[in-house]
Amino acid sequence: MARSTDPSRPVLPEWEVSTWLNTPAPINLASLRGRVVLLHTFQMLCPGCVAYGLPQAERVHQAFLASELAVVGLHTVFEHHAVMTVDALRAFIHEYRWSFPIGVDAPDGRGGPSRTMARYGLRGTPSCLLLDRQGRVRLHHFGQLDDLRLGSLLGRLIAGPDEPHQVDAAGSLRSAPAAQGDAVVCEPAGCSTRAGAR
Amino acid sequence: MARSTDPSRPVLPEWEVSTWLNTPAPINLASLRGRVVLLHTFQMLCPGCVAYGLPQAERVHQAFLASELAVVGLHTVFEHHAVMTVDALRAFIHEYRWSFPIGVDAPDGRGGPSRTMARYGLRGTPSCLLLDRQGRVRLHHFGQLDDLRLGSLLGRLIAGPDEPHQVDAAGSLRSAPAAQGDAVVCEPAGCSTRAGAR
Amino acid sequence: MARSTDPSRPVLPEWEVSTWLNTPAPINLASLRGRVVLLHTFQMLCPGCVAYGLPQAERVHQAFLASELAVVGLHTVFEHHAVMTVDALRAFIHEYRWSFPIGVDAPDGRGGPSRTMARYGLRGTPSCLLLDRQGRVRLHHFGQLDDLRLGSLLGRLIAGPDEPHQVDAAGSLRSAPAAQGDAVVCEPAGCSTRAGAR
Amino acid sequence: MARSTDPSRPVLPEWEVSTWLNTPAPINLASLRGRVVLLHTFQMLCPGCVAYGLPQAERVHQAFLASELAVVGLHTVFEHHAVMTVDALRAFIHEYRWSFPIGVDAPDGRGGPSRTMARYGLRGTPSCLLLDRQGRVRLHHFGQLDDLRLGSLLGRLIAGPDEPHQVDAAGSLRSAPAAQGDAVVCEPAGCSTRAGAR
Repeated sequence: MARSTDPSRPVLPEWEVSTWLNTPAPINLASLRGRVVLLHTFQMLCPGCVAYGLPQAERVHQAFLASELAVVGLHTVFEHHAVMTVDALRAFIHEYRWSFPIGVDAPDGRGGPSRTMARYGLRGTPSCLLLDRQGRVRLHHFGQLDDLRLGSLLGRLIAGPDEPHQVDAAGSLRSAPAAQGDAVVCEPAGCSTRAGAR
Repeated sequence: MARSTDPSRPVLPEWEVSTWLNTPAPINLASLRGRVVLLHTFQMLCPGCVAYGLPQAERVHQAFLASELAVVGLHTVFEHHAVMTVDALRAFIHEYRWSFPIGVDAPDGRGGPSRTMARYGLRGTPSCLLLDRQGRVRLHHFGQLDDLRLGSLLGRLIAGPDEPHQVDAAGSLRSAPAAQGDAVVCEPAGCSTRAGAR
Repeated sequence: MARSTDPSRPVLPEWEVSTWLNTPAPINLASLRGRVVLLHTFQMLCPGCVAYGLPQAERVHQAFLASELAVVGLHTVFEHHAVMTVDALRAFIHEYRWSFPIGVDAPDGRGGPSRTMARYGLRGTPSCLLLDRQGRVRLHHFGQLDDLRLGSLLGRLIAGPDEPHQVDAAGSLRSAPAAQGDAVVCEPAGCSTRAGAR
Repeated sequence: MARSTDPSRPVLPEWEVSTWLNTPAPINLASLRGRVVLLHTFQMLCPGCVAYGLPQAERVHQAFLASELAVVGLHTVFEHHAVMTVDALRAFIHEYRWSFPIGVDAPDGRGGPSRTMARYGLRGTPSCLLLDRQGRVRLHHFGQLDDLRLGSLLGRLIAGPDEPHQVDAAGSLRSAPAAQGDAVVCEPAGCSTRAGAR
């Protein structure tokens, strides 16, 4: 398995979703193997998510073949828990016409960040994770990401061979194989420094 | 050679440039083999080029590694010849700070479309051509092209194996090998129909 | 009184607000006499309000002197009542940093449009009403309104004499005195036809 | 004469135009008395003019009644004289479909800023001057100006009485009569400090 030769690239562990919207059945990560995945995490009352992140996720969902790329939203609530409920999210999705599957991240039950958000080490919203066809994290980005770079990363992951390329959202888009022990792009801290969130 | 197995994908013939700007030496297509090429053809008095096409070419030039992708501009004058001169173009480039190499397409000497424009069958400006690392035309697009799709195409061409993928700018981004006799994406007429210029 | 000579221009009746946010004390229309008023009515889950209407109201609030112009928001809920609560609105205002006073329109108690919305004959959200210094309705507009036209109307109302000008948001901005019996601009139906949103 | 009571507000002296385009006859300032005037000065190879200034002038031209407001463009060349010729300007106007009258500012004959540009003390392009119905300068602005503020100023000048209001493009839009000896808004230096472009 490719990932065993590249221990610095973790396979993303499963998310923990309490409710799914916009999909007839629950979705788990294992079922998405073989397709590139864009995971867009957001909160319905996050201005940057509404203005930039979610419209971009929708554009990606419209632009790519479902057989090659899956777009999944994850509602990762870490504030205003009392009003960002499932019913509120349902109304929000209806009004904005988001068409991709959206999971409600399981609350931690103590008013903190939701469970998957904590598990994945997300810094805030919007955050996006790109997974290659083996489920390995190839980008972990907090904040805005321009369409040209995101498109390029998606194109590389869809068309590329399965050997690990090193991709990031920074000025250069390197395809050299990651050296053993090379800095892992998908660490939140690393990404936030190198990917240059706007 | 891959291209010999895919006769429907022509290698782009050389351009005919009378003057080069923004480059210390003339550039020919042969010297770009091994890199993906974005050829952006424009006129300095074309509103769509100034508002959309040239800024996009500049963004691509800034976003990708020069070792992987070459952005080349081509000033293909087919109207207002008396005022879109080399000196005018030089002032235009200076004021707008375009930083990628730009060639002046050789005039036909009779007031019609410039020579390379005619040779390549360009319908107007802006037009862009994407070439893979073997110099084969993978996209021939007239009009606007959104960043997400352009980025995806560039990423596919940079990361992909050398076997011909079929790429276009339409809603789906197919990677299935082109069947023998499949419609050629790079024909101007075909592209204008299928790529859906905005 | 000017309005007695212009019966076709109604003084807007008082709104009925259940809760005020972003203001130390309730606001009534009578207290705003002498100032031009921009009343922006919205719902927190209305995409057009979030993308266009509310940012424009905020820009107006920042651009004009409070002594000349008052910007007032009104949350007129007519759908998704269970989730567009006062607490949800408070979180929304906090996240988006809206800085002008916002009133919660009194619910009708039966799940229909809120009371002031019905009283004013609003067609939906976003809607804006412009009142002159006498509290007369000078524009009643549903949908988007460009900044140039809105700015012009506000400038006319602030600088103009108290005699009624006829203002609308259409292509021409007429200042001729309204003839007796002239079509009333502030009727919802009339505005929607003549003001030509966008 | 109104201006004699307000010596701090100069009546703009006549421009000196060598060629007029987009108008059947030459235009002089005296003939525009009684109407508010937006004078937009630009160069065809100035990126800010093409991206912001000229489109805004066109929007104003479309939005207001010709009987109330005149929009006039002035091509004030101060660089690249050899290529920003009358013929080049004519092609530029044709391609961009500018529809308002545009005058070519008379060259100084020595390669410096054109004559009216020097006479009016313009700092660069784009610059706009707003004149009230008496031809007095009410705004002299270098750089971008947002639609909301420009619209408000135009509305004030169109609707206002003939007594001098003090208008500027800054955060507040004061309508108090200018005191004797009050700082003149229309001085280039004063405007650039107080109007806070952008």
